[in-house]
Amino acid sequence: MKRLIAALMVLLFTYSGSLCLAQSDQPAVVEDFKPASTNQPGRQFPQVNSEGRVRASISAPEAQRVQLDISAVKYDLIKDKSGVWTGDSDPQDEGFHYYQLWIDGAAVPDPGSLYFYGAGRWGSGIDVPAKDQDFYALKNVPHGQIREHLYFSQSENSMRRCFVYTPPGYDADLTKRYPVLYLQHGGGEDETGWPNQGRTNLIMDNLIAEGKAKSFIIVMDNGTWRWPENVPRPKRGERPKGGWPPKGWADGFMKTLLKDIIPMVDTSYRTLADQEHRAMAGLSMGGMQTRIITLAHPDVFSHVGMFSGGSISMEDVNNAPGFKDKIKLVFISYGSRELENRRMGFGGDPRANTDAISEAGMNTHFYVSPMTAHEWQSWRRSLHEFAQLLFQD
Amino acid sequence: MKRLIAALMVLLFTYSGSLCLAQSDQPAVVEDFKPASTNQPGRQFPQVNSEGRVRASISAPEAQRVQLDISAVKYDLIKDKSGVWTGDSDPQDEGFHYYQLWIDGAAVPDPGSLYFYGAGRWGSGIDVPAKDQDFYALKNVPHGQIREHLYFSQSENSMRRCFVYTPPGYDADLTKRYPVLYLQHGGGEDETGWPNQGRTNLIMDNLIAEGKAKSFIIVMDNGTWRWPENVPRPKRGERPKGGWPPKGWADGFMKTLLKDIIPMVDTSYRTLADQEHRAMAGLSMGGMQTRIITLAHPDVFSHVGMFSGGSISMEDVNNAPGFKDKIKLVFISYGSRELENRRMGFGGDPRANTDAISEAGMNTHFYVSPMTAHEWQSWRRSLHEFAQLLFQD
Repeated sequence: MKRLIAALMVLLFTYSGSLCLAQSDQPAVVEDFKPASTNQPGRQFPQVNSEGRVRASISAPEAQRVQLDISAVKYDLIKDKSGVWTGDSDPQDEGFHYYQLWIDGAAVPDPGSLYFYGAGRWGSGIDVPAKDQDFYALKNVPHGQIREHLYFSQSENSMRRCFVYTPPGYDADLTKRYPVLYLQHGGGEDETGWPNQGRTNLIMDNLIAEGKAKSFIIVMDNGTWRWPENVPRPKRGERPKGGWPPKGWADGFMKTLLKDIIPMVDTSYRTLADQEHRAMAGLSMGGMQTRIITLAHPDVFSHVGMFSGGSISMEDVNNAPGFKDKIKLVFISYGSRELENRRMGFGGDPRANTDAISEAGMNTHFYVSPMTAHEWQSWRRSLHEFAQLLFQD
Repeated sequence: MKRLIAALMVLLFTYSGSLCLAQSDQPAVVEDFKPASTNQPGRQFPQVNSEGRVRASISAPEAQRVQLDISAVKYDLIKDKSGVWTGDSDPQDEGFHYYQLWIDGAAVPDPGSLYFYGAGRWGSGIDVPAKDQDFYALKNVPHGQIREHLYFSQSENSMRRCFVYTPPGYDADLTKRYPVLYLQHGGGEDETGWPNQGRTNLIMDNLIAEGKAKSFIIVMDNGTWRWPENVPRPKRGERPKGGWPPKGWADGFMKTLLKDIIPMVDTSYRTLADQEHRAMAGLSMGGMQTRIITLAHPDVFSHVGMFSGGSISMEDVNNAPGFKDKIKLVFISYGSRELENRRMGFGGDPRANTDAISEAGMNTHFYVSPMTAHEWQSWRRSLHEFAQLLFQD
């Protein structure tokens, strides 16, 4: 009994902050926290509860202030007698979020989490369990592979890296050839985004096992852009002439994709190397690149996906010879919170644009990810929807 | 001139610690630091100089104490006026080292470095440039691939993951079959060790391009061991009866390797699926597993490599029917600092053991990595030596 009281005292001491909140107009925290699926092996923190709150905990006996920084909000952690700081965030949206800890003014990764590249750095990420998480779960189904592919780029005169998903059975039937999806990450991310936090291989393996998607190859390369050589750099704090992003910003990656990546893929893999069997999609910046590149080259791609990265307007179609007749699918998606917040990328209302080109006779699909923002859960779901529509005819 | 003096004053202020040391019997630090090759894209710190000193730097304006923790020594960093802490380690051995930062008592990864799995955690690592680093450099040569392979283990009733290196040309000539090396990590590491910090693919690509090694497949799986079911767990602080590690500690992975991994590899890849074309090697704990598994199964493996993980004695050979006749190569290696420090693993002096089985007629190779300890540079070099001796007849 003494030990129970002592344990309760420790709890009271440790979580007095939360208890105070519970007595005010804040709702009580549901105490069903579990270690996150994105934790390092054996690590007990961070944890997530059924409300989607993230509980961080770290030993920092000499620190004055420790904070959890997630979804652009910093939450104070509280120190216990042993020097361990613990605290909770507000409920988070379902799915994957980048986050970090602040220890006396230093922004650092949480030593409990796995690390992911995004927001321009390798750092902590956490998966808040989603009601639909089954579609990207690791299951005992036939699995494809993610291959790390190093290659020399003639147009950049340097070595580059991409990741290539080959579907289940690729190494069994050596006569079969496959369509290819070129799938791009967002700004501040790289070629590891789709295979890691995007869970691309698991989404595809599960869809293929259920007979819901065709088998195809997915190429995930690095689309980071550099300032175009023929556009003068604006002075610090000024916007470039002609607005942001600078004209021609996507030209560099377009050249690398067309001159290096696609020929390399068609040489290295058993592809169906024609327009009919080649798709391009991307998230955010990758969607904007997809728009520019497929509008300019409807002879190269037949299926187009833009996830939280703008849309294709009637004006775009009218100015892109061949696009209307040659493109078999234009897939546009957003997280519902992006539409609520009117964060819809460039070029006008995406739903109105998509309706317009649909009425003009194009095959379109508009998808909204429920209750998610400009984050990976929107893009996992977008890939899951898009993949089922690809190469169907 | 005023600005120059101001700059010098800042330098004096910032590095007064180092300057004080320089005036004592400590040698002056050579100011030719460069960002480490293992840094995150665009990060300026950590840096390494020509002496092999590591300079860490992090903004932590409210911190009281910040330290760089590398090779089991903590070095105090010094705060400048803007709240940035900077400091240097003593010169480090050439090659790769795990490290971390301490901020007011919290052990955290350095936000400037890439992250690696070792010492039981994902955390910071740094490569100190080595005179022989060319053998694991990324070059414009034909490249093999590292494939992430997910598979179901019947004996463990769960999904497992390994990484598989397929050599250059594997996807070009679909009739060619290859020998296989099973290559294991050390304790506190996992299947990512050899492909990441081990630089296995680059070592092999370069050797093959130079015509110095045969092309073979390398399988890197997870050899983490669990307490054997039939051995009672010792109480806290006590050693298990019969000494450490407990008897049968390697049996679990041996079963998984023989029952699951090898059959899966021989089904999934174009292997030469016989004893003659199958090798096993490992570092530290992985070397100890290699010893136990190959002594028990000389019918399965023909080439044996143990890197900083013990050796094979005459007694071992005498107690292992078939081993002496069937095994074509026993390769034993250590870092020179391990031999100096007499950290030589289990089972007696490795050089004397290797000499003895050599005199008894076995084909052996004893390699010492110059000026390295129980660290990855010893193991990169060991793989580089070992690979050139594999499958030569």
